[in-house]
Amino acid sequence: MGRKEEILDAAGRLFSQRGYHATSVREIARALDLQGGSLYAHIDSKEEVLFRIVERAAERFAGVVRGLPQGGARERICAFVRGHLRVVVEELPYATVFFHEWKFLSEPYKARIRRLRDGYEAALKGLIEEGVREGVFRVEDPDLAAKFVLGALNWVYQWYSPRGRLGPEELGRGFCPLVLGALGGEGKDGIPLHGGGDAAP
Amino acid sequence: MGRKEEILDAAGRLFSQRGYHATSVREIARALDLQGGSLYAHIDSKEEVLFRIVERAAERFAGVVRGLPQGGARERICAFVRGHLRVVVEELPYATVFFHEWKFLSEPYKARIRRLRDGYEAALKGLIEEGVREGVFRVEDPDLAAKFVLGALNWVYQWYSPRGRLGPEELGRGFCPLVLGALGGEGKDGIPLHGGGDAAP
Repeated sequence: MGRKEEILDAAGRLFSQRGYHATSVREIARALDLQGGSLYAHIDSKEEVLFRIVERAAERFAGVVRGLPQGGARERICAFVRGHLRVVVEELPYATVFFHEWKFLSEPYKARIRRLRDGYEAALKGLIEEGVREGVFRVEDPDLAAKFVLGALNWVYQWYSPRGRLGPEELGRGFCPLVLGALGGEGKDGIPLHGGGDAAP
Repeated sequence: MGRKEEILDAAGRLFSQRGYHATSVREIARALDLQGGSLYAHIDSKEEVLFRIVERAAERFAGVVRGLPQGGARERICAFVRGHLRVVVEELPYATVFFHEWKFLSEPYKARIRRLRDGYEAALKGLIEEGVREGVFRVEDPDLAAKFVLGALNWVYQWYSPRGRLGPEELGRGFCPLVLGALGGEGKDGIPLHGGGDAAP
């Protein structure tokens, strides 16, 4: 791991624990056994560090959309659910900073992240609309439904513990039928609601 | 409004905007045109202020459960959804602090809030189990389903704007069928999915 990545990881942990404003560059340096000043050989500012962390999370989420399989909307939305939850769980500190601290970015950083966030939500809305066109989802307000689903998925960062009873795979299997149900998509193609969609056994 | 309440309101806004750790007692005082020291006539500590804010949000949420109507699980869960969203929307800064900053409380404050949070989630899980017993919901893991629904509802604090296209009532009407659907509860008693449950027209 390069020095820059070490800095991002340490800062990601500190920002996720105490918040961006309450974490100083000096504290990030201390977590790496460095002098505060020497960090500036690697970073421009604390805000740049926040931006890199938020950007990395945003890019991992964007990768979920790029990696969606071809196929029906039910399969695609369950792949989205599993992929999204995997990012939240695997990148817990980065995802936490992405959810909480991105609003502290100033322009032009903030606009870039807002574009990524909006694009991601639009992709989910598109998946929902695909399913409506296919006749496998019934949704009155795809925009609201996308916000509902994203909220349910994102909130996992608040309670997920690697030592809890559910690993990322179980989580995906448990959430997929809940999402399909919310979208009015259950049982339409003869797949029973639970263990439904492409949730592997 | 008493002086103490003014302090809580000002602190709630600042904590929700910048976070607990990044807000000083001096800044709370400044927002009220007071000297920092004079705040201590009304409060014991910054942490007490955080506790009072979080406690007030927790109590408003608890009031949602106490105010649930008698009746079937579908009606009761939609009343829960509407009530919960009303608290999030009406108490946006308090709810934000409740969601983000409660973890910074130390004991015994933290344990008291954790009890309230756990009790609230247990009440929602109980509603879901009621519906399963009534045969109107089909849910494999009521604990996970409760976390899913709470996440979808709570996340509203991230995007809700009083100037947006949806008021609290429309939000409740839009979310109720999504929640019923997630719980496998659609169409079971002949009420169509959309405009379903007791979502008033």
